[in-house]
Amino acid sequence: MRPAPAVPARNTKTAVAVSADPVLQPGPIPGVPGVRLAGVRAGIRYPDRLDLVAVELAAGSETCAVFTQNAFCAAPVEIARRHLGAASPRYLLINAGNANAGTGGAGREAALACCRALARQRGVSPEQVLPFSTGVIGEALPVDSIGKALPQLLSRLDAEAWPDAARGILTTDTEAKSAWAELDVNGNSVRIAGFAKGAGMIHPDMATMLAFVFTDAKLSRGQVDALLREQVEHSFNRITVDGDTSTNDACVFCATGAGPTPVESDSVNWNRLREALGQVFRHLAQAIIRDAEGAGKFITVRVSEGGSSRECLQVAYAVAESPLVKTACFASDPNWGRILAAVGRAGVENLDPGGLRILLGSVPVVAHGELHENYSEEAGLAAMAGTDIEIEIRLGRGDCEETVWTSDLSHEYVRINADYRT
Amino acid sequence: MRPAPAVPARNTKTAVAVSADPVLQPGPIPGVPGVRLAGVRAGIRYPDRLDLVAVELAAGSETCAVFTQNAFCAAPVEIARRHLGAASPRYLLINAGNANAGTGGAGREAALACCRALARQRGVSPEQVLPFSTGVIGEALPVDSIGKALPQLLSRLDAEAWPDAARGILTTDTEAKSAWAELDVNGNSVRIAGFAKGAGMIHPDMATMLAFVFTDAKLSRGQVDALLREQVEHSFNRITVDGDTSTNDACVFCATGAGPTPVESDSVNWNRLREALGQVFRHLAQAIIRDAEGAGKFITVRVSEGGSSRECLQVAYAVAESPLVKTACFASDPNWGRILAAVGRAGVENLDPGGLRILLGSVPVVAHGELHENYSEEAGLAAMAGTDIEIEIRLGRGDCEETVWTSDLSHEYVRINADYRT
Repeated sequence: MRPAPAVPARNTKTAVAVSADPVLQPGPIPGVPGVRLAGVRAGIRYPDRLDLVAVELAAGSETCAVFTQNAFCAAPVEIARRHLGAASPRYLLINAGNANAGTGGAGREAALACCRALARQRGVSPEQVLPFSTGVIGEALPVDSIGKALPQLLSRLDAEAWPDAARGILTTDTEAKSAWAELDVNGNSVRIAGFAKGAGMIHPDMATMLAFVFTDAKLSRGQVDALLREQVEHSFNRITVDGDTSTNDACVFCATGAGPTPVESDSVNWNRLREALGQVFRHLAQAIIRDAEGAGKFITVRVSEGGSSRECLQVAYAVAESPLVKTACFASDPNWGRILAAVGRAGVENLDPGGLRILLGSVPVVAHGELHENYSEEAGLAAMAGTDIEIEIRLGRGDCEETVWTSDLSHEYVRINADYRT
Repeated sequence: MRPAPAVPARNTKTAVAVSADPVLQPGPIPGVPGVRLAGVRAGIRYPDRLDLVAVELAAGSETCAVFTQNAFCAAPVEIARRHLGAASPRYLLINAGNANAGTGGAGREAALACCRALARQRGVSPEQVLPFSTGVIGEALPVDSIGKALPQLLSRLDAEAWPDAARGILTTDTEAKSAWAELDVNGNSVRIAGFAKGAGMIHPDMATMLAFVFTDAKLSRGQVDALLREQVEHSFNRITVDGDTSTNDACVFCATGAGPTPVESDSVNWNRLREALGQVFRHLAQAIIRDAEGAGKFITVRVSEGGSSRECLQVAYAVAESPLVKTACFASDPNWGRILAAVGRAGVENLDPGGLRILLGSVPVVAHGELHENYSEEAGLAAMAGTDIEIEIRLGRGDCEETVWTSDLSHEYVRINADYRT
């Protein structure tokens, strides 16, 4: 089993240094050699809002992506998958305001038309363009508006437009989410930078989550793919608001190779790159939870002493997705009975109540399946009072560990999701 | 595959006739030969509230029960399971206000002490008494209060105290839930009657759901067990509010044999008995959903044309448990994109979007994975406007079908569950 992720920065959405070997950097992204970006107002759904973003990747870049597992994936997901299999991407074209989902053959044609228009203007093949869409479902993509905005968009490509790009992909997010890191590899700097959108995986019809991470490290396609899958598994695949996954989720990782030396797999530098990537990915994933619709709490559910990684995750998700646990967190209520009940229904075979311990922050609450003898309601209330709540569940069955992050279930969640289309 | 359940009564919580061969009866339960009941105020948590119930079963009764699958089952569940394995039950002893859960060895001893006290007063063995508790978790069962109330409780046992029994097991329920049916078997009447408590499986720490169903039919223990498992599967195991299961759930089915002729398995009468039982079980299960905390909508999710019963249920639960679908129902919003996204993430292998159809009530909304060409938002809004919402999903893969019932996710749900302990 891989070690559990390091405890990340929690109190702000701006990136801050977090580990013994800090690489996550504060302040705006200074750029990643080999990447140029732009964002413009195309009027896709709202006027005067950045809603169309292009990212240009240097020739020779290696790019991989993971997409939603939803059986009803949106048209751009189908096209992006197909293009990734056919060519090395040179451009990402991302629009907000319209998900181009539930739109059938016409939707695929619309996504393709946008790729073709960009390709023609930049002298690449349409297969070298990956389309991404996020926004309302079931409405025709306004291809004309996108086409009209393309010349301006492409003319603005530059190395520093990260804030425009990060803002241009947002939908219901209340703020842009970006992070960057820098590490020294044999005396040369390697940059990692990324941005993401998502208000908590709670809007399948808003095409929920998109994330784009770039590095100038020289990596093979196989390395890029391995790193992407590893990182997603421990960041975006460890956050949940309500268990819903969208039709448009995607995460892209690109190594431009514009930087200095190659990084050999399984070397010391490889592990440092993994750690730095982990910090960027986790920061972006956690920023989504912190910005989750209606969220007032950032909840870490850590399950340790498991017999397997799988059973740790079963328990972590049962707790993190329990509406009863989430409403208790909203109320800052140390309602250990709800946590116990969620653990008990997680489906772990032969779970021994006698071996179970539950802590809220550092407060032991349950031992041997019963209330801890030294537990006081005051201590429990104190552990639930802050914005950040830590629920730790020790299964007493082994040495595996997994961590999942989630938000609380608030009045505001219901208000936003009940009002959204009306 | 078993046929899908008949469409049940929807508009009131009082039992009304529902099928072509109506057996569900209106009005108060007139009694079931072989069953005597009583309910008293024992002051377990609140004064002046019926909170202690006894049910006496005639000698020769055959009784079976199913219990929560939660790994952390409450003390009374452990004791009831053990007693059921050791003897034929003559008494059920049910208290509300205290779940006797998370109470360890002392909790088991408390449950046993109550069984022993009742057994002594009625001249039966303690193993012939099954204990059930529902209420707050983690607090010591007030054995003294129960012991003091027992003589009065047992002195009141009679054939007609069904309303007291149905009321005495409630916790956060807003009303008692009972149903009865009568059918003619070879010229003799057979009665079925039951009562249940539960405010929607949404209170694991409130010991959520208890149901007790009785008949005077002459049935073997094997028949009782088979009927119970079949009926629970298509009633209480088909309702969900938030996926949480409690530490105390139990459903008991008892055939006193005090009635007339035996019913042979797989005979015409057997099938009529099954149908009548189905109406009683479904009525009780649906009454729980209608009384679910904060619920304003009663939602039927029917999945048909499935390749297997299992995949129909996967899809039905993905939709019925989606907070996004549930908030849309609360808002009476025909948000088909959320339903589509939930279907898509249900994990059905090789699901073909082209074969999928979704209807709201009788309004076709999605065909071939896209918005139906004749769909109008007005028709969709009309289908969502009432208290009862029907979501039908046709998978286009086979002829299996399953139905699940759920409630909406409302502000009131959050208020109740956030305020409950504070």
